[in-house]
Amino acid sequence: MTQHFTEAASDETVNARIGPHTERRLAEVMSSLVTHLHAFAKDIQLTQAEWDAAIDFLTRTGQLCSAERQEFVLLSDELGLSMLVDAINNRRPAGATENTVLGPFHVDGAPVLEMGSDICLDGKGERCLFEGAILDLHGNPVEGARLDVWSDNADGFYDVQQPDVQPKWNNRGRFITGADGYYHFHGAKPTSYPIPDDGPVGALLSQLGRHPYRPAHMHFIITASGYQTVTTHTFVDGDTYLKSDAVFGVKQSLIAPIERLTGTDTQWRSRFNFVLIPA
Amino acid sequence: MTQHFTEAASDETVNARIGPHTERRLAEVMSSLVTHLHAFAKDIQLTQAEWDAAIDFLTRTGQLCSAERQEFVLLSDELGLSMLVDAINNRRPAGATENTVLGPFHVDGAPVLEMGSDICLDGKGERCLFEGAILDLHGNPVEGARLDVWSDNADGFYDVQQPDVQPKWNNRGRFITGADGYYHFHGAKPTSYPIPDDGPVGALLSQLGRHPYRPAHMHFIITASGYQTVTTHTFVDGDTYLKSDAVFGVKQSLIAPIERLTGTDTQWRSRFNFVLIPA
Repeated sequence: MTQHFTEAASDETVNARIGPHTERRLAEVMSSLVTHLHAFAKDIQLTQAEWDAAIDFLTRTGQLCSAERQEFVLLSDELGLSMLVDAINNRRPAGATENTVLGPFHVDGAPVLEMGSDICLDGKGERCLFEGAILDLHGNPVEGARLDVWSDNADGFYDVQQPDVQPKWNNRGRFITGADGYYHFHGAKPTSYPIPDDGPVGALLSQLGRHPYRPAHMHFIITASGYQTVTTHTFVDGDTYLKSDAVFGVKQSLIAPIERLTGTDTQWRSRFNFVLIPA
Repeated sequence: MTQHFTEAASDETVNARIGPHTERRLAEVMSSLVTHLHAFAKDIQLTQAEWDAAIDFLTRTGQLCSAERQEFVLLSDELGLSMLVDAINNRRPAGATENTVLGPFHVDGAPVLEMGSDICLDGKGERCLFEGAILDLHGNPVEGARLDVWSDNADGFYDVQQPDVQPKWNNRGRFITGADGYYHFHGAKPTSYPIPDDGPVGALLSQLGRHPYRPAHMHFIITASGYQTVTTHTFVDGDTYLKSDAVFGVKQSLIAPIERLTGTDTQWRSRFNFVLIPA
């Protein structure tokens, strides 16, 4: 292999430059990145005009990022990379509740509420009871599990997206299980909503013939001493977008049955048991 | 294959979403990108912390881009992608002059000068005569070939990098060959220089144990009616960085012999013949 560039050995030439004192994992990651990047360019015979377009796309994507907007995370979501990284790092045995993406709207420090409380503070939408149990793999209840839950409101926005419109902590709360491992709280029935699609990533989505919607879901982070943390959603069964979530967050096992209630102010009930595995 | 996300079929799930009316080439490019991107993440078992670092790196790279600075082009250069795209799109038969990267410092519209003129306007550095012939594959001279040439000054900066310091069009010019196909002009002997390394891309280069230097070179774009345009450099033989050009621009065939002259104000002579192929 020459130390000068050749098309055939392009990735080897680049990777041979990595210095002997380079941190080992960085060398491993960057070598693999270069090999796959060059294989991609060769496989599709990337043109100069396409390279120009890619540079322009990445530049606009970076320049749209701000404290309130992370366009590169959207790009990763849209390409399925966010879900893949989540999957690689959270493999669990059959029967354990699966992870899905955290998403950009989690906020630390939501109020700890009594079981049964209503997390919906703006009164919008239909009422839904969320209930179920936190269990271990043997079906035993997990006492002292903490559920951190959050969702969009009935208009499809999280409180942090509308700080001047929604009450603080709207559709957010934390709950601690008792000895029975049972949880129950009320909230607005979640609604499907589009991810921000007015930037370069939304334009790409549109060019690919894809819509920007996520199916309706409730977010959960469940932590319990001695158990692996589960970061996940429950998805509203029957939602139009279950098979076409713009960020690929849906897993079959996370679709929660929802049933209509009668004779109560609460119109819906969503039941889901979470199964934790040891840390 | 399920339409819901699974780790095993992650790229297929994403690519199955591409709509039926998507422009064919875009679908091809994006499918290949997703497949290679997912294979990369799987091969190295990308961690959540590494994904976080990648998002942060790309964001900072985008935010450093401006009218004067293109950090994503630097990234592409540093990863050898720019050279690879140039190679894929400019394959030529043996004997023809090879391309190398255009670089970010070309300016359209440099003055057309008489053969023999000195393009160095700031008087800095040692004088060098650049000479040779523009030939076809059979060794016949090409009449009416236009050479667009540019280089850094003796301090290692292009005029556009120092608009308040260097004269306009310093170390730039265009020349047209006569019937003999011969070219000759004077300029400063080029010097090696670092690519901008005070941003995220420079930091990565440093973490990889690489230096930011390019070996000394003169840029050429050679156009002639009926021939393929050649965008290339000649590299100064003997330069310290010939085997470690930060952007991988060096090809063995582009290293030009340079010889010291005596008894003249011009201290150096760089000889190089360019061989064009039909358009």
